[in-house]
Amino acid sequence: MSKWRNRIAEEEDIVVSSRVRLARNLQGHRFPGALDQDEAQIVEERIVRVIDTKFPGIYRHFRTEDLGEDAKVLMENHLISPELIQNRAFSSFCLSEDENFNIMINEEDHIRMQALWPGMPGIELFEQAKGLMDSLEEELDFSFHPEFGYLTSCPTNTGTGLRASVMLHLPSIKYSGLFPGLEDSLGKVGLIVRGLNGEGSMALGEMYQISNQKTLGPSERNSIIKLNRYVKHIVAKERELRRSFLTHYRPMLEDQVSRSLGILKYAKLISQEEAMACISLLRVGISLGLLEKISLKRITDLFFNVQKHNMIKYGQIKGLELEENQLRSMYINEFFKEVDLDG
Amino acid sequence: MSKWRNRIAEEEDIVVSSRVRLARNLQGHRFPGALDQDEAQIVEERIVRVIDTKFPGIYRHFRTEDLGEDAKVLMENHLISPELIQNRAFSSFCLSEDENFNIMINEEDHIRMQALWPGMPGIELFEQAKGLMDSLEEELDFSFHPEFGYLTSCPTNTGTGLRASVMLHLPSIKYSGLFPGLEDSLGKVGLIVRGLNGEGSMALGEMYQISNQKTLGPSERNSIIKLNRYVKHIVAKERELRRSFLTHYRPMLEDQVSRSLGILKYAKLISQEEAMACISLLRVGISLGLLEKISLKRITDLFFNVQKHNMIKYGQIKGLELEENQLRSMYINEFFKEVDLDG
Repeated sequence: MSKWRNRIAEEEDIVVSSRVRLARNLQGHRFPGALDQDEAQIVEERIVRVIDTKFPGIYRHFRTEDLGEDAKVLMENHLISPELIQNRAFSSFCLSEDENFNIMINEEDHIRMQALWPGMPGIELFEQAKGLMDSLEEELDFSFHPEFGYLTSCPTNTGTGLRASVMLHLPSIKYSGLFPGLEDSLGKVGLIVRGLNGEGSMALGEMYQISNQKTLGPSERNSIIKLNRYVKHIVAKERELRRSFLTHYRPMLEDQVSRSLGILKYAKLISQEEAMACISLLRVGISLGLLEKISLKRITDLFFNVQKHNMIKYGQIKGLELEENQLRSMYINEFFKEVDLDG
Repeated sequence: MSKWRNRIAEEEDIVVSSRVRLARNLQGHRFPGALDQDEAQIVEERIVRVIDTKFPGIYRHFRTEDLGEDAKVLMENHLISPELIQNRAFSSFCLSEDENFNIMINEEDHIRMQALWPGMPGIELFEQAKGLMDSLEEELDFSFHPEFGYLTSCPTNTGTGLRASVMLHLPSIKYSGLFPGLEDSLGKVGLIVRGLNGEGSMALGEMYQISNQKTLGPSERNSIIKLNRYVKHIVAKERELRRSFLTHYRPMLEDQVSRSLGILKYAKLISQEEAMACISLLRVGISLGLLEKISLKRITDLFFNVQKHNMIKYGQIKGLELEENQLRSMYINEFFKEVDLDG
């Protein structure tokens, strides 16, 4: 279902996805929070015109308001931000055909561009986003201060306007009790840890987002390189713990992985929390070779697709007037009928 | 695996099995607790000779000691009593080919005969046991007192020497909180409630044994008729509660039944307690038509076969040196591969 996940990454056992986000604002216009309908529309038209001229046929423009509840499905799949939905009266976005790039308009800033891919937050991902932004800058005047850099609605983004983040699946670090120590260490080097859906959200299924904090001072390249360096350490630690767990508690781990599969295949009412906890265990099982016949990509897609608004949409498509937990179990039961893990 | 379960009973959704036990002692011999090896052997030989003469080729004689750990498998399947094993140095038993009848020798009394069948504790079951005992009495002098009746090692059995008991599956009464009230009411009319494996045992899988208490005073027929009358009330109540639960909580019940199946099929480590709790839910599911393609008889067999010593025996037969909970999960996984409930 998620086109942007199609790339296969070497670290897919732990690194679920990486995202680079750049914030920019047009000179001569107030920030989105202070815009009225007319000015918001002028900002939108200016940006969309440049995108259409520079990249004809590649980006499709959607007004957030027109999408209704479907906007929340895109948010759960990390294609748009919660703030874009909060600002829905004025906001819109231009999504690339492959879904790797999205240019959000009138979110917290006039432009919030994000580049997404599975795997490490490599420098190439940043370069792709920067290249795209530079193309837009050829036609648009961005608010820029010679000393501070790019100006943004919230001062925490001023400077590079960059946020690079990575989503990691860290069940072994979590259940070894090493998580608080990791969070502290990362904080000391300016990296911040968040839950599945960003700020203030829970790390359901042991999914954590780690991102750079500083936009004023370090260069973009240095921010990305630092993030990559720490992520490599975390990946190595999580892998070591998973293997150690397999060595010392194999029967227990096999039981937990297999039970998770049993619950996903047989439950007729399942909450998002429980489904994600089970899928998290399947990811571990696949990464350790305990479950074959299913790819990490498909199971990672499943993880994101069992979220609330995805399920409501599924019910609408299927014409089923059922409660969310029933829809989720039907969706998951169907998924595993297609993927026969036993046969 | 249990031959005596082959009869099909109308009440099999709730009534698992019924048992009639008659206690007798030979005149001129001390009770088993006071016997030495020589006298115990004389008692045994006298009884076995009569059985072989009266019923040639029908009963097979086993010395408890010769069976080793297999005796515990028979105990778990309710074919012999725990006391017979405690007394193993002197004790033996004569089991009928169809396993419906077992004559235990030098248990608490010289003779403890039991007749077993699935379904209600009907008067016919008592008549079969009584008929068999009368045949033995033609050749053996039983200790009998004109006022008190048959004399027994423990005075609580003196009189008729009868204990009639029935095993009932009562999950809805249990989870509706009605159980303590039921136990009180039965106690007031002289019926006693015990767990899965008799006195002092837990009611695993919500399996309860209900039996008559008095052997001095009421006639055997009246004891049996009373037990049957109360059991009919209990069966009606349990059925009513199951149907009501289905009416009011169908999605939840379907979820619980289906999850139980998923756990039984997929767990790789499962305790007796958990397995029995899951099988208990499958019994409810089958009785309410939520699960087809499997008989109550097979699932009831499974319930008793997952007990500890059955599992140890399974490991020996298969040549597997695994821990009990691993053996149990393998046994159950195999069971459900044969019985394809999904297909």
